Amino acid sequence: MAGLITLTTDFGTRDSYVAAIKGVIHRVCPDARIEDLTHDIPPQDVWEAAFFLAGAAPWFPVGTVHLVVIDPGVGTARRPIAAAAGGQVFVCPDNGVLTVVLDRCDLERAHVIKNAAFMLPAVSATFHGRDIFAPAAARLAGGADIASAGPEVDRIVLLEVPDPKRRAGGVIEGEIIHVDRFGNAVTNIPDTMLDRAVAHTFEAGGTAIASLSRTYGDAEPGAPLALIGSSGRLEIAINQGNAAEVLGLGRGMAVRVCRRTRT
Amino acid sequence: MAGLITLTTDFGTRDSYVAAIKGVIHRVCPDARIEDLTHDIPPQDVWEAAFFLAGAAPWFPVGTVHLVVIDPGVGTARRPIAAAAGGQVFVCPDNGVLTVVLDRCDLERAHVIKNAAFMLPAVSATFHGRDIFAPAAARLAGGADIASAGPEVDRIVLLEVPDPKRRAGGVIEGEIIHVDRFGNAVTNIPDTMLDRAVAHTFEAGGTAIASLSRTYGDAEPGAPLALIGSSGRLEIAINQGNAAEVLGLGRGMAVRVCRRTRT
Amino acid sequence: MAGLITLTTDFGTRDSYVAAIKGVIHRVCPDARIEDLTHDIPPQDVWEAAFFLAGAAPWFPVGTVHLVVIDPGVGTARRPIAAAAGGQVFVCPDNGVLTVVLDRCDLERAHVIKNAAFMLPAVSATFHGRDIFAPAAARLAGGADIASAGPEVDRIVLLEVPDPKRRAGGVIEGEIIHVDRFGNAVTNIPDTMLDRAVAHTFEAGGTAIASLSRTYGDAEPGAPLALIGSSGRLEIAINQGNAAEVLGLGRGMAVRVCRRTRT
Repeated sequence: MAGLITLTTDFGTRDSYVAAIKGVIHRVCPDARIEDLTHDIPPQDVWEAAFFLAGAAPWFPVGTVHLVVIDPGVGTARRPIAAAAGGQVFVCPDNGVLTVVLDRCDLERAHVIKNAAFMLPAVSATFHGRDIFAPAAARLAGGADIASAGPEVDRIVLLEVPDPKRRAGGVIEGEIIHVDRFGNAVTNIPDTMLDRAVAHTFEAGGTAIASLSRTYGDAEPGAPLALIGSSGRLEIAINQGNAAEVLGLGRGMAVRVCRRTRT
Repeated sequence: MAGLITLTTDFGTRDSYVAAIKGVIHRVCPDARIEDLTHDIPPQDVWEAAFFLAGAAPWFPVGTVHLVVIDPGVGTARRPIAAAAGGQVFVCPDNGVLTVVLDRCDLERAHVIKNAAFMLPAVSATFHGRDIFAPAAARLAGGADIASAGPEVDRIVLLEVPDPKRRAGGVIEGEIIHVDRFGNAVTNIPDTMLDRAVAHTFEAGGTAIASLSRTYGDAEPGAPLALIGSSGRLEIAINQGNAAEVLGLGRGMAVRVCRRTRT
Repeated sequence: MAGLITLTTDFGTRDSYVAAIKGVIHRVCPDARIEDLTHDIPPQDVWEAAFFLAGAAPWFPVGTVHLVVIDPGVGTARRPIAAAAGGQVFVCPDNGVLTVVLDRCDLERAHVIKNAAFMLPAVSATFHGRDIFAPAAARLAGGADIASAGPEVDRIVLLEVPDPKRRAGGVIEGEIIHVDRFGNAVTNIPDTMLDRAVAHTFEAGGTAIASLSRTYGDAEPGAPLALIGSSGRLEIAINQGNAAEVLGLGRGMAVRVCRRTRT
């Protein structure tokens, strides 16, 4: 089976950047299979890419090569790396983009890409996606050993991620870490932090929600609801509506979970 | 030849939902070939998905598996189904998304997906695209019999579709059912309803068009025109312009076709 | 190895046009591999497609078939062609879309697509992408000889492209030919026109930039900079910002490069 390479970038597709990357991959590894994951990461938003990858990469077959190019530091001292974690292989700038993936699995190994055989003959200062990351991913998908990419490193860059806090009286204080296309506001509060034996209320942006739903259709159309989303985190949503727009929610806003006093 | 699976969703690609679906397909059927059709269906707009599918699926090779996830009812009583029609296989929620496809071919068979072997081991309440539809499509593309998905059903959900009406004096009253990226307004009036031996005028949104063009370039740049579009339906367009914006046209608006009195 | 076909269109993906093209390709050449390059060319903008292709096609393996459908003249007298250049094969309307590709390599041969075996049995007046270009590309990817497409032609349509001018005192006058997703303004001034032994200033939209950077990170965040971009042309950019928005830059605007007097 030919190697599988996924693409995650902030390039959009109106420019030829993604196309050039695909061309290079096919040149270096003619039987590679390429799967677009997204080119819609907001420009240079490493956090969104990190969150995206954690929802995507773990579902792929062991040995899949994930090429990730969100690279505001292209051409500066930030290192290009090849890293293995959770059975997946990542080729990316060392800028924190693996932070959320590594919440749930250990880094197996990471190597700085220094081997010229992993790069194009001419490397530009402005487009390492095409000149370094694409050929490196193609080499790995073609069977090259990750150790041959370059020297191993002990640590890679991790972003500081806001943790939810437990307060007195069973209160949990978290925040919104992502708003999806449907306007669902994903929080940093994991399923495992909620005691299902207890009733809770959920507050975000001045809206209070009196119970935890199992699915979107459990609330009336247009009504705000709280549920555990597909990533295992608390979400604020509106059945058949856009919660972020209607409730004025956005990334970084506070979310509180309180125990409900039964009266 | 490995199985071919197409993807039609309203997920966009800025979230990891489509990516997770692709990962699951590759895990369950490692040699499946995936083709993105669209992830740009407006959120939860079953009609647009139904119209889209009818323009797309019939062009694919017999036996192609079409995974369709526009699923406002996820987690509720709506059924996940696998259906065969027109030589194509569809894996989708039973919410009417096959309505327009079935205008032009018969439903061969439909089965509710109940077999646990067609699902992931853990099925969430909010993301059946990943947990049910993707593994089911991968099983079918890998050669599983559609009958093994679950019990056969006699009827599936169909949307109510507005039919064009013939009125006195040869008048046809229809409506706009889709506006495309170029601003062309597609109506529900089929080519076959127009008597080509007779001259017509076409009215939509207060604009009257005096003849039927063969192609966009038959009108002056900027001039409104009527033609039979690539789906075999009457369209209102503007040569090198956006008819919907310029003429104020949108889905659901009335369109009238009248016989022209030659004077 | 099955034939590789890339897709470049202005269709977007909210309509079924790209999907129908993919279906036709798979029907005509079942083992073809399809790679999306872009469907986000602005509607009917032949120049943007021409610029895009030049940044994309040369990176692909020799023999790749590039299907290009930006076709404002569909159904009129403009010819459908199959052309070979730089080791790549292009299937497209003869409307100038190969202009920038041919800046850097010679046209090897071009044929008008007239052979009915290269088309669907029924050819509509409004969608040659599906009815002519897709089956023609699939035939070529499946091994058909380009000469069998139809009669050879000596000349194809080329767009008039603004050339940068050298003025007295070492001044170069160029213009912005593309703004990318990041807001970087790409000019028509090639790397090779700048004498690296001399210091320059760069002016665009009322902003003057005092030196040439090597990479985006060489300037302070938020500061305008000039550099040679990944296509080998002078670009105006802002480190971690959107130069087009902040500086008010757009396609067609003048850019001046002057020798700097050392004082």
